[in-house]
Amino acid sequence: MPRRYLNLTPLSEALASMRRTFPPLDRAETVPLRLAVGRVTAEPLYAEYSVPKVDIATFDGYAVRSEDTLGAQDQRPLPLADCARINTGEVLPPSFDAVVMIEDTWDDGGTPWIRKSAAPWQHVRHSGEDIRAGELILPKGHQVRPFDIGALATYGITMVKVRSVRVGIVPTGSDLVPLGVAPAPGQTIETNTLMAEAYLTRMGATCRRYGIVPDDPDLIRDALEEAVAENDLVILSAGSSAGTRDFSRDAVGALGEIVFHGIAVRPGKPVLLGNVGGKPVLGMPGYPVAAQTVLREIVGDLLAWWGLAAPRGEELDVRLSRKMTSDLGFDEFVPVSVGRVDGTCWATPHPRGGGIQMAVVRANGYLHISAGREGIEAGEEVRVRLTVPPAMIASTLVCIGQRSPALAELQNCLSDTGYLLHCCNASTMGAVLAIRAKTCHAASVCIPETEAAWNDLVLRYLPGVDLLRVQVARTELGIISAGDLDTDNLASFRFVNRPKGSPARILLDAWLDREGVDAGRLAGYENEVRTPGAVAAAVGSGFADAGVCPAGMAREAGLRFTPLGYESCELLIRKELAGDDGVASLIRTAQSPEFRERLRSLEW
Amino acid sequence: MPRRYLNLTPLSEALASMRRTFPPLDRAETVPLRLAVGRVTAEPLYAEYSVPKVDIATFDGYAVRSEDTLGAQDQRPLPLADCARINTGEVLPPSFDAVVMIEDTWDDGGTPWIRKSAAPWQHVRHSGEDIRAGELILPKGHQVRPFDIGALATYGITMVKVRSVRVGIVPTGSDLVPLGVAPAPGQTIETNTLMAEAYLTRMGATCRRYGIVPDDPDLIRDALEEAVAENDLVILSAGSSAGTRDFSRDAVGALGEIVFHGIAVRPGKPVLLGNVGGKPVLGMPGYPVAAQTVLREIVGDLLAWWGLAAPRGEELDVRLSRKMTSDLGFDEFVPVSVGRVDGTCWATPHPRGGGIQMAVVRANGYLHISAGREGIEAGEEVRVRLTVPPAMIASTLVCIGQRSPALAELQNCLSDTGYLLHCCNASTMGAVLAIRAKTCHAASVCIPETEAAWNDLVLRYLPGVDLLRVQVARTELGIISAGDLDTDNLASFRFVNRPKGSPARILLDAWLDREGVDAGRLAGYENEVRTPGAVAAAVGSGFADAGVCPAGMAREAGLRFTPLGYESCELLIRKELAGDDGVASLIRTAQSPEFRERLRSLEW
Repeated sequence: MPRRYLNLTPLSEALASMRRTFPPLDRAETVPLRLAVGRVTAEPLYAEYSVPKVDIATFDGYAVRSEDTLGAQDQRPLPLADCARINTGEVLPPSFDAVVMIEDTWDDGGTPWIRKSAAPWQHVRHSGEDIRAGELILPKGHQVRPFDIGALATYGITMVKVRSVRVGIVPTGSDLVPLGVAPAPGQTIETNTLMAEAYLTRMGATCRRYGIVPDDPDLIRDALEEAVAENDLVILSAGSSAGTRDFSRDAVGALGEIVFHGIAVRPGKPVLLGNVGGKPVLGMPGYPVAAQTVLREIVGDLLAWWGLAAPRGEELDVRLSRKMTSDLGFDEFVPVSVGRVDGTCWATPHPRGGGIQMAVVRANGYLHISAGREGIEAGEEVRVRLTVPPAMIASTLVCIGQRSPALAELQNCLSDTGYLLHCCNASTMGAVLAIRAKTCHAASVCIPETEAAWNDLVLRYLPGVDLLRVQVARTELGIISAGDLDTDNLASFRFVNRPKGSPARILLDAWLDREGVDAGRLAGYENEVRTPGAVAAAVGSGFADAGVCPAGMAREAGLRFTPLGYESCELLIRKELAGDDGVASLIRTAQSPEFRERLRSLEW
Repeated sequence: MPRRYLNLTPLSEALASMRRTFPPLDRAETVPLRLAVGRVTAEPLYAEYSVPKVDIATFDGYAVRSEDTLGAQDQRPLPLADCARINTGEVLPPSFDAVVMIEDTWDDGGTPWIRKSAAPWQHVRHSGEDIRAGELILPKGHQVRPFDIGALATYGITMVKVRSVRVGIVPTGSDLVPLGVAPAPGQTIETNTLMAEAYLTRMGATCRRYGIVPDDPDLIRDALEEAVAENDLVILSAGSSAGTRDFSRDAVGALGEIVFHGIAVRPGKPVLLGNVGGKPVLGMPGYPVAAQTVLREIVGDLLAWWGLAAPRGEELDVRLSRKMTSDLGFDEFVPVSVGRVDGTCWATPHPRGGGIQMAVVRANGYLHISAGREGIEAGEEVRVRLTVPPAMIASTLVCIGQRSPALAELQNCLSDTGYLLHCCNASTMGAVLAIRAKTCHAASVCIPETEAAWNDLVLRYLPGVDLLRVQVARTELGIISAGDLDTDNLASFRFVNRPKGSPARILLDAWLDREGVDAGRLAGYENEVRTPGAVAAAVGSGFADAGVCPAGMAREAGLRFTPLGYESCELLIRKELAGDDGVASLIRTAQSPEFRERLRSLEW
């Protein structure tokens, strides 16, 4: 029987006990100046010398003593008896205190004359005007910016002592194969340590990834021992759960102590924190989105506590476009896409599973639902943390509805205009309701190309809404069959069907209706598959005799095709938004010859 | 005579003509996945295979056919006659459609029994649930984030085609020495190309820095020709002005055409854009802050136009703490420090000179005063672009007033508390007025440690304000002299003085007053120097006979010292702000034994 967690530690308690157990680390490394960008200074930096080192001229002209020029006027020019020719940037000779621009003089037999007196220190840059020798340039704890590099170099700094943490990352799991190897069914590419390295390196940590360790308690313990000896912090990737093949707990227990195991966080519950010889060991869950949560909320918090620069996104107050439920007592993190529709920022959630990595790729932020909440209502104001620069929200267009290859192509073409299209999955009904609530720029629906479908699926729910329809794709659907199909021999066919509400199902039902066939008498009518490809595969392999799929797939599979009608994938856009520059770009792109051309290459 | 600019191009026109002349570049390079973070995709990325590849179990247990389990109940358990043992992550065998958790079964002589029926696809992760083979992962034009790396690896991507621009950076100037060489007076460390490399690399450009080219027209033309051949964009550092030693214009003119020379921007006026064989050549000014403006506003704009990720800071609406003037017709960029004081964000400007690089280091943002403005009033709302993450503003404390080594030490000590102290230079009066207008968290003043000085310099301007005084340093001041000093022989001493309003001057005047000496009769009384070090140097070298400076300097120089009194450097803080966590940290730190200890090592 698998072991159970005895109890789940709340996130806030887990972080507090982590900070208590592991006081700030005082590790630094010295790096050449050009590698210091983004790192945090471990000690203050002081100017090696004054800049400018000495008083210098800021114009081409003559160095003078200002008192010698007193009284010079248009009506009473004076010769510069004692002066020195000087160029911009050159050192002011010791006895002089001003510079006269060459344009303000004229030469009379080798002696320059002036018509205007010079103020003391006129056109002179004082020694130390920018910085004086020994003056503070940067305090400790400062994250070095690109332009700081220029200043540091100017002031004589060539090496910089920056804060550093050595992180050892150990992937465990017999099912893992390294990146570059095509995984067999049941195998997983070892990607979480790569992701951890990318994330933590950005914080200024020095990461070392170890080789894959199979699910063997002894090997895992040995690998952990080695990694602890060589690093300040060790991450054991996967194996941190409480299953029969989860050995992280035992390995940590054998070498040190468990600080906590299991936290009330979703995704990310099966996290483990151990203390091995005073060094933290983090058991990171194998599900990638759970691993991300742990990297961001736990490891990130520890490194920030240790003085590294936390790369947290900016926060933004937005409205939630859909009602969400959440378990009381659990801190939940939900990937969302944020877009500004007609002045209001809306966040639309993506699926939450720990294995749905695409949800995070598609999102531009995430919502933290704190443990005290049971859910959030649609329209409620929430604070979202962005995973893109905040300025990018202004150029983000949110489309709610059905994803399709045509829509993906539209995303690509749109990127040339500087706008980003975020597609959040929803049913046709979900898409239509999003248009009604005005939580998106566009809704994507795939419906039968019939007036009845338009009236039933769209118009009924959007009375009085002025809509633009932009078709992005059009597909002929029909029944594919191994043999000839007619209404008389229908009973002898085993069907495979598509889900209720899908255009294929609606067109099939309409056809059966027209032909006067009772759907209930059709063998396999209740047998639903999720994709048109599965229909073609079922008929092609003889598992079924007939089903609805696109004409192109029928051609490809060499099967009979009885046309039923067209499916239209289109964007619905409120006319009142068409003046928005981003929405206008979207419409223009969808109607452009380039996009139409690209679509042809996608057609079945 | 130096050549003059014929006319200055407004910034907006300069950017428009640049974009017109140089259409987006279509260059890409293919990099290993782990190096793709921060880069922008040059083409869309599609999944190599479905994830999961096949249907897999999400729990340890038994694979079953759901229809076989129908009817199982507490009162009527069923045996699983046809099932297969399966673990989490393992492939669901083809004929099964559900998984029963092992905890929900019990074993009776080799056959597992159940008490509850299984729903179809229960505890099964469908093939393609995360992504299907061929589905879009990232559109082109997407800046890759650390967590995207994990997803891309999971979906079989090992190399990524990213946008790329090759930038050649050529430093010119006979006064330049490379980093690591101590500059002689009049020499400058070549730092602008290092800064340009740091800045542009962060945008995803591939930079190549060339060797220093002396001010020789032929050598500069040859270097430019080579750099143009090897890059997509060339930056000629320095020499872009219109002076006698500025050869960039001639070099560009010899090889191509001038697009514009001189723009109405401060700092950054002497910028040059040329077109050499269809490639842009940018003449970047030598003054570092002018160079920064050009990198950010011109080169950054071009690279963004070419599809790289612009690393622009976020914008924030704040109030300006001081009135500023600006030349009509010039776009001006002014470094500012932004801090939130009692709920209101205030921006305090730093000095604007093109050579004052420390102003940018000390700042956390900059203000763009557009060409149409002649100035901005104190208290007016302005939009500032930050050079730090916006979240950092909440932990920024702004101190207005006099900088001192003690204050720098306080900045260092404070950084351990997570707060940053920004010091903006101002006179004692400026500091006091900032407290009155509540535009800073603390004011730093250095005043004689006398009640009269407190009343005259502080209390008079802050009637009714409840103040906390936190002393950060205390220095004994007195008259140093080569020989013995008394009121009888004062006339024989040549003095060197400190500026009006300085504690040294106030203490000297009070002493002269007490001793009944007429200051006007003191030789050199009008002779002001800018630092106490200059006083000590003047007396030490015999240039003067006496002057006021700290006791420690007198000891160090081995000169006589006639004590006058103490200078007190202190922070003034409104009592009402003392409850603010940051201000409380500042006060605690300034009073901490650690800070006091560090101060002792600084004492003269």
